Amino acid sequence: MDVSEHQAAAASTDQRLRRGARSRRAVTRRSVDIASVDGLDGLSFGRLAEDLGVSKAGIQTLFRTKETLQLATVDAARDVFLDVVVRPARDVPAGVARLRALVDGWIEYAERPVFPGGCFWGANLPIFDSRPGPVRDALREQQHAWVALLATQFRRAVDAGEIADREPETAAFEVAAVLNALNLALRLGDDAGVAMARRSVDRLLRSPRKTQES
Amino acid sequence: MDVSEHQAAAASTDQRLRRGARSRRAVTRRSVDIASVDGLDGLSFGRLAEDLGVSKAGIQTLFRTKETLQLATVDAARDVFLDVVVRPARDVPAGVARLRALVDGWIEYAERPVFPGGCFWGANLPIFDSRPGPVRDALREQQHAWVALLATQFRRAVDAGEIADREPETAAFEVAAVLNALNLALRLGDDAGVAMARRSVDRLLRSPRKTQES
Repeated sequence: MDVSEHQAAAASTDQRLRRGARSRRAVTRRSVDIASVDGLDGLSFGRLAEDLGVSKAGIQTLFRTKETLQLATVDAARDVFLDVVVRPARDVPAGVARLRALVDGWIEYAERPVFPGGCFWGANLPIFDSRPGPVRDALREQQHAWVALLATQFRRAVDAGEIADREPETAAFEVAAVLNALNLALRLGDDAGVAMARRSVDRLLRSPRKTQES
Repeated sequence: MDVSEHQAAAASTDQRLRRGARSRRAVTRRSVDIASVDGLDGLSFGRLAEDLGVSKAGIQTLFRTKETLQLATVDAARDVFLDVVVRPARDVPAGVARLRALVDGWIEYAERPVFPGGCFWGANLPIFDSRPGPVRDALREQQHAWVALLATQFRRAVDAGEIADREPETAAFEVAAVLNALNLALRLGDDAGVAMARRSVDRLLRSPRKTQES
């Protein structure tokens, strides 16, 4: 191959890779929505092919196994979550203000909802929690990252004297637990539950400095 | 029919009903375990027949439809929950002491675990939350009953001056949310999560009188 032939071949490979990435994104955009309602178990090459009006073989070529498809779906859900909840809060000052922005972003994500079945992790962690394997690991890792993110901002808030001196990890764990309960209440159409969860979150984020909590 | 024939027929009907009830209990004892791991969707007449070494037609005669089987399974799970968590706490004085007994009973129920997949509602509510129908209604009603039970004891504790003056429903909602997160952490083998949930529950139940929480 001379230089121009080599360049042409490279360009064609680039194009193929870009097309592949675009196709994968088109599939995972749909698979995330399905998995938020019916769980990652509800995914199949056949169903996706039908929904997207493409061939089942084409989707199978892109993902090979159901587990690979599930893992790609979990990654795609995380990307959306980062875009709609985490990134917008980065412009807000660290500490209580950013905590509030993260939590408000999360409530908006569950209320709109961004995924038709509500929180992606709320729908899938309970299904995969007793099934060791890469899908469970990926879901767990992402959930930990969310709690860790809240804990970091709780620590900043405590250090700045904005809220009572509490263990940041436990405080973050509580907020995440209540948000999860709020998501469930939203799905169940349980308005009283939604109201209680909101009051609860407000209380957990307020914790004024003068309060001597343990 | 003379009197003795009538009595014989009635006795035979009684016996048949008793046998039917025993058979139903044998099936739901197994179906609760399956549904705690694989969800109520994982139930089928065929699988139960195989597990129990009986005929599929026999089980089908007892329950008719999958939904009837699911509803009977939800009822059976509640009966076990009442036996292992709720009834033992009735002997404990109302207020903080009974709250503690209920919560300790719940943690023991999730830790042992009583059902192989952990908390029955933690496994099934997220699957059915977006599916209106009698199964979802039954699961939601039972979850509400649990939160209401905690709220009643919170109210007793507040009235007796045992804990800070807090809205009992919101406090109960928080405890239930953290217990749910504890169940998930147990299933995930997430020891740090379990430890945080325990600290969190202790804090929520302690809330000393002098603390001025909102």
